[in-house]
Amino acid sequence: MVLIDPWGSVLVKDYEDVIKTFGLETFNPKLFPEPNRLMRRGVVFAGRDLRILAGAIKKKEKFYALTGIMPSAERIHFGNKMVVEMMSYFQERGAKTYVLVADLEAAATRGISLEKARKTALDFHIPAWIALGLDPKKTTFYLQSENKEVVHMAYNFSKRITLNEFKSIYGSADPGRIMGALTQAGDILYPQLKERMPGVIPVGVDQDPHIRLTRDIVERTKSSYNFIPPSAVFNKFTPSLDGELKMSKSKPGSCIELPENPKEVCRKLKGALTGGRDTIDEQKKLGGEPEKCMIFELYKQHLIDDDKQLQKIYDDCKAGKLMCGEDKQHACELMTKFMEKFEKDMEKARKKVKELKFVEFK
Amino acid sequence: MVLIDPWGSVLVKDYEDVIKTFGLETFNPKLFPEPNRLMRRGVVFAGRDLRILAGAIKKKEKFYALTGIMPSAERIHFGNKMVVEMMSYFQERGAKTYVLVADLEAAATRGISLEKARKTALDFHIPAWIALGLDPKKTTFYLQSENKEVVHMAYNFSKRITLNEFKSIYGSADPGRIMGALTQAGDILYPQLKERMPGVIPVGVDQDPHIRLTRDIVERTKSSYNFIPPSAVFNKFTPSLDGELKMSKSKPGSCIELPENPKEVCRKLKGALTGGRDTIDEQKKLGGEPEKCMIFELYKQHLIDDDKQLQKIYDDCKAGKLMCGEDKQHACELMTKFMEKFEKDMEKARKKVKELKFVEFK
Repeated sequence: MVLIDPWGSVLVKDYEDVIKTFGLETFNPKLFPEPNRLMRRGVVFAGRDLRILAGAIKKKEKFYALTGIMPSAERIHFGNKMVVEMMSYFQERGAKTYVLVADLEAAATRGISLEKARKTALDFHIPAWIALGLDPKKTTFYLQSENKEVVHMAYNFSKRITLNEFKSIYGSADPGRIMGALTQAGDILYPQLKERMPGVIPVGVDQDPHIRLTRDIVERTKSSYNFIPPSAVFNKFTPSLDGELKMSKSKPGSCIELPENPKEVCRKLKGALTGGRDTIDEQKKLGGEPEKCMIFELYKQHLIDDDKQLQKIYDDCKAGKLMCGEDKQHACELMTKFMEKFEKDMEKARKKVKELKFVEFK
Repeated sequence: MVLIDPWGSVLVKDYEDVIKTFGLETFNPKLFPEPNRLMRRGVVFAGRDLRILAGAIKKKEKFYALTGIMPSAERIHFGNKMVVEMMSYFQERGAKTYVLVADLEAAATRGISLEKARKTALDFHIPAWIALGLDPKKTTFYLQSENKEVVHMAYNFSKRITLNEFKSIYGSADPGRIMGALTQAGDILYPQLKERMPGVIPVGVDQDPHIRLTRDIVERTKSSYNFIPPSAVFNKFTPSLDGELKMSKSKPGSCIELPENPKEVCRKLKGALTGGRDTIDEQKKLGGEPEKCMIFELYKQHLIDDDKQLQKIYDDCKAGKLMCGEDKQHACELMTKFMEKFEKDMEKARKKVKELKFVEFK
């Protein structure tokens, strides 16, 4: 059995296989109004209970979108950015939006102190989420460690799952991960404590174990909580620049971080795997292979919003009109613009964070 | 390897073996001022870090005693009573005294709701603890679910222990028990968050896994918390009336509950295993065997404080002067007195509970 490990760094190559193995639904962008770049291009490729979610959006019924911040370091990478874009998409379509700081999970799985986690989230992650498009005025922020109700759910849920079930979902189990995962299930269901409603958790597909665990728990706590099982949308990974793994800070040379110095980014782009041929002559004759190109992947996932512009690059590459050097220069320019804008937006967002009111719990 | 299971009901027969296997210290009552009945008679038979504890008492240095209430049902049994007596002993000798309601653990290991747990503790356990001798004015009460610092410690600790270590200490592991045990470790160390000091946890010896887990955690969190490893005193079990298992509510015919109707108690005592011979004639000739008698065990552990009076019963039995019927009648009278006094003391204690102030946490 293929096992998707939320703590691993293996790049999934066969997404069709993942859909089959884990019983996911194929994502159909036509179900959703004005699908964004990720949805249109199959980067968001699968989900769970998508019709319930699409129905709530269409009928303008109450629903929520939730994501968590793992405050482990003062930077993220390009792969992390997609979740924020999906959160913004749902927020703009009426979702009650929740962003939690997973400080208890950071303590349980990474040994990070609560104080450090809180500081990292406030100094970096929350401003970054805002800079990437989340509207802070429409978002409920909280810290796990301050949210008693979430913690109490984690304890209640722990009685409903065996160690073997945990292992079969996650492939492994240790005390910290168990506590972290059960707390995450509490987070995912927390918005429904006050009001039963559909919700969506946008995640990388490696996070599906958490979604499955939570949906199992919903089933088992029907008589006490009566939650609606959470929907999920799954995005593919942003690959590392060498195309070997999913993008990850553990392989810094192949990872574009946020923030990162544009010169450094362009240097990394130069070394990226492309779909180019061995010689320029050959490439002019045969054309390139954009479907194997990490630069094209960055355009598709992150840098180029306009579908026609993206298509033109694809066609030019295929036709042998666009050479890799020129293309990398183009990517470097787009990235530089992106990074400069991000820096500016971060500065603005940091000011907003000071005005933010975290949820206060009794 | 002998494994002591805190969730099991097997009666330990060879306490010397337990001491050796788990590296306990033999309890020496001479180390302690005015040892109580349980300490004098070897019912408290072992401990950990006893010299540190005895030293603190002798030098009148700060130390604490802590115990938890598992609020699973509105009654306890005679075996549970010993922990309260040990708590009172330490309280009278200057211990800062903590009694916590293990409501999160009850949720995680038994699926009891926090509301129900709280109600059961307030209606029954706390009054019972007071009726059995604890001074409520000198005791800090709290609910796990309200004590954020304890919960945060549980999460921090979870990173410091592997699943295999947990299994080797407890013999098994499941998510609820893991969360319960780590939270208990948080409780045991909680009084030291404000002030580093020795502490003692009086428990039945089956609870030693929790003590070991906590002491392991102390070792591993030296750089962050710097706690003093908790001391422990261990009592032997009160056996079930048939002498087969430890006293447990799961075997109601052999268990004396608190509270229990005295007539019912006397009926159960009539069926108890004694050290009597097959016939009265034989018993007069050979004498009885008090060391095998559950009635004598009740005298020794619970009903007779005066050592001389206990010795006389032993001698009379051995000499064939005391027959089992008469002896059971005597036990019935002592139990009836005990139960009547307990009822009255409970009534008084319930009034005191209303005036109690639980610790309030921000």
